[in-house]
Amino acid sequence: MNPKTLTVNVPQNTYAVLGTGALGGFYGAKLQKSGLDVHFLLHSDYKYVINHGLVIESKDGDFTLPSVNAYNEVAKMPQCDVVIVALKTTHNHLLPQMLPSVVKNDGVVLLLQNGLGIEEEVAAIVGSHRVIGGLCFLCSNKIAPGHIHHLDYGQIFVGEYASNYVPVGITDRMKKIAHDFETAGITIKFAEDLLLARWQKLVWNIPYNGLSVILNATTAELMANANTRRLVEQLMQEVVAGAKSSGRVIPQNFVQLMLDYTENMKPYRTSMKIDYDQQRPLEVEGIFGNPLRIAKANGVDLPKIDCLYQQLKFLDKKRQL
Amino acid sequence: MNPKTLTVNVPQNTYAVLGTGALGGFYGAKLQKSGLDVHFLLHSDYKYVINHGLVIESKDGDFTLPSVNAYNEVAKMPQCDVVIVALKTTHNHLLPQMLPSVVKNDGVVLLLQNGLGIEEEVAAIVGSHRVIGGLCFLCSNKIAPGHIHHLDYGQIFVGEYASNYVPVGITDRMKKIAHDFETAGITIKFAEDLLLARWQKLVWNIPYNGLSVILNATTAELMANANTRRLVEQLMQEVVAGAKSSGRVIPQNFVQLMLDYTENMKPYRTSMKIDYDQQRPLEVEGIFGNPLRIAKANGVDLPKIDCLYQQLKFLDKKRQL
Repeated sequence: MNPKTLTVNVPQNTYAVLGTGALGGFYGAKLQKSGLDVHFLLHSDYKYVINHGLVIESKDGDFTLPSVNAYNEVAKMPQCDVVIVALKTTHNHLLPQMLPSVVKNDGVVLLLQNGLGIEEEVAAIVGSHRVIGGLCFLCSNKIAPGHIHHLDYGQIFVGEYASNYVPVGITDRMKKIAHDFETAGITIKFAEDLLLARWQKLVWNIPYNGLSVILNATTAELMANANTRRLVEQLMQEVVAGAKSSGRVIPQNFVQLMLDYTENMKPYRTSMKIDYDQQRPLEVEGIFGNPLRIAKANGVDLPKIDCLYQQLKFLDKKRQL
Repeated sequence: MNPKTLTVNVPQNTYAVLGTGALGGFYGAKLQKSGLDVHFLLHSDYKYVINHGLVIESKDGDFTLPSVNAYNEVAKMPQCDVVIVALKTTHNHLLPQMLPSVVKNDGVVLLLQNGLGIEEEVAAIVGSHRVIGGLCFLCSNKIAPGHIHHLDYGQIFVGEYASNYVPVGITDRMKKIAHDFETAGITIKFAEDLLLARWQKLVWNIPYNGLSVILNATTAELMANANTRRLVEQLMQEVVAGAKSSGRVIPQNFVQLMLDYTENMKPYRTSMKIDYDQQRPLEVEGIFGNPLRIAKANGVDLPKIDCLYQQLKFLDKKRQL
């Protein structure tokens, strides 16, 4: 028995990617390139990708997958061990129809989305024992059908979901998924407390995504002006207060870290600003609405985040008329 | 002795107008047309107006003043009984040089400006016994040098200023000024409590001026969207809280009145939006900064107004680069 035979005997995870865009297309292509069986759900790019595959331009090395398992309907996809949800949360109303047929009974949904309270929605569909949350730190754009440009970063924090976000530590299936991603060249970190990780990500996402759209500004412009820099920090403190209302402690040096980190970044157009500029719907509910409602239910008002939320709702609706 | 002679024997107020734009030009021209002695300070339009006078297009009737007393320096102006300050508050740093020479010892400064805390600044220059505050409800634009288009409204609330905004009721000199304006066809109402009147005006000015600039919207758009309508009302409630911190009670039906009134107005571009579109400095400090600081000094935070304040400071600075 040689080592090769041994490897074949270990069952490999199969992957489904729902939403083959800048994020799902990038991670899915990396997984397929590493030798895994990956199935991609596509919408507008379906015909192009079934004929031409996927092209990844990446700072870590360009590559092409001339042939991929592409689908335009979830019903045609095989049941998979890991179902990566890489849709924008603005499409999450489709998940109740999509998920049940594509995730194996002992499989898991890996939710690579922004915002808060999304795991609960998915748990209501597939059961809370089949949900893992993932937070991506990725700078990537789709520049043409099936053509993805990975600019920077790529790391994912993954954390098991359990009812009411009770922390459940690091499980074997998480380790197995992490191993798949690491083998594909994607850095994985474990979040032992998924809800804390979600709130922490909002410390950055709420001020910069919101203000970049409302004020038509880059992160650098927001940091260079004394007033918006102060407002950014006040918004971050409201996120800290929201986390606290959920029983999660974000230390003050984390806020300072995010400020320093952003100050030293090159001027950056946030993902919400890119969505806005491209006239796509904004993920206002996941990133702003849900945190506000969760904090409110815990008895805490976040007035400045609420101000941004209502401004964004207005802009989002106006843009789509 | 005939009635004409009698009239001549009654001393008439003389008027200076500092800032001969959409507001000062309109009111000053109306006063001169009614027969009063008016002296106009001009800046960019000086040469044009000294040669061509003022043209007023008004819904109440067009008229021309072929000759006016025009000045390009305050030092050349005669001392007047009533000095109307009709500059934008963004120019108020000029008042210490302007006011002392133009206001008579027993004269008065009539401050026709928006915002809060302006009377205190002027009182520090001319003494609190020589300040009357005025709140204009006027829709008027300057459309060319010396050419003003009065679209609608025009009423002024006037109130005596006293140290710490202690209400002092209706004085004889107020009545005399009111008589001059009424004779010129301008409706005057007396504000027995100037500070209350100032806070009340902010109930409208803060939400609509602020959001119209930040969201590039008319009043009608802000009222048609459920989110911004809610935000407008929340901002109004913060103004009510600010007034309360100054010991002034704005009744809830006043808030409702402002909402209903604006809902039934035709789509309106606010004065701050007009300033922004024309790349003029915004009156952010008078309308937002001072109320915030006054409420803060009284121990009350107004977080949503603060959010708008910082957003406007950013936009104001960016626009002027």
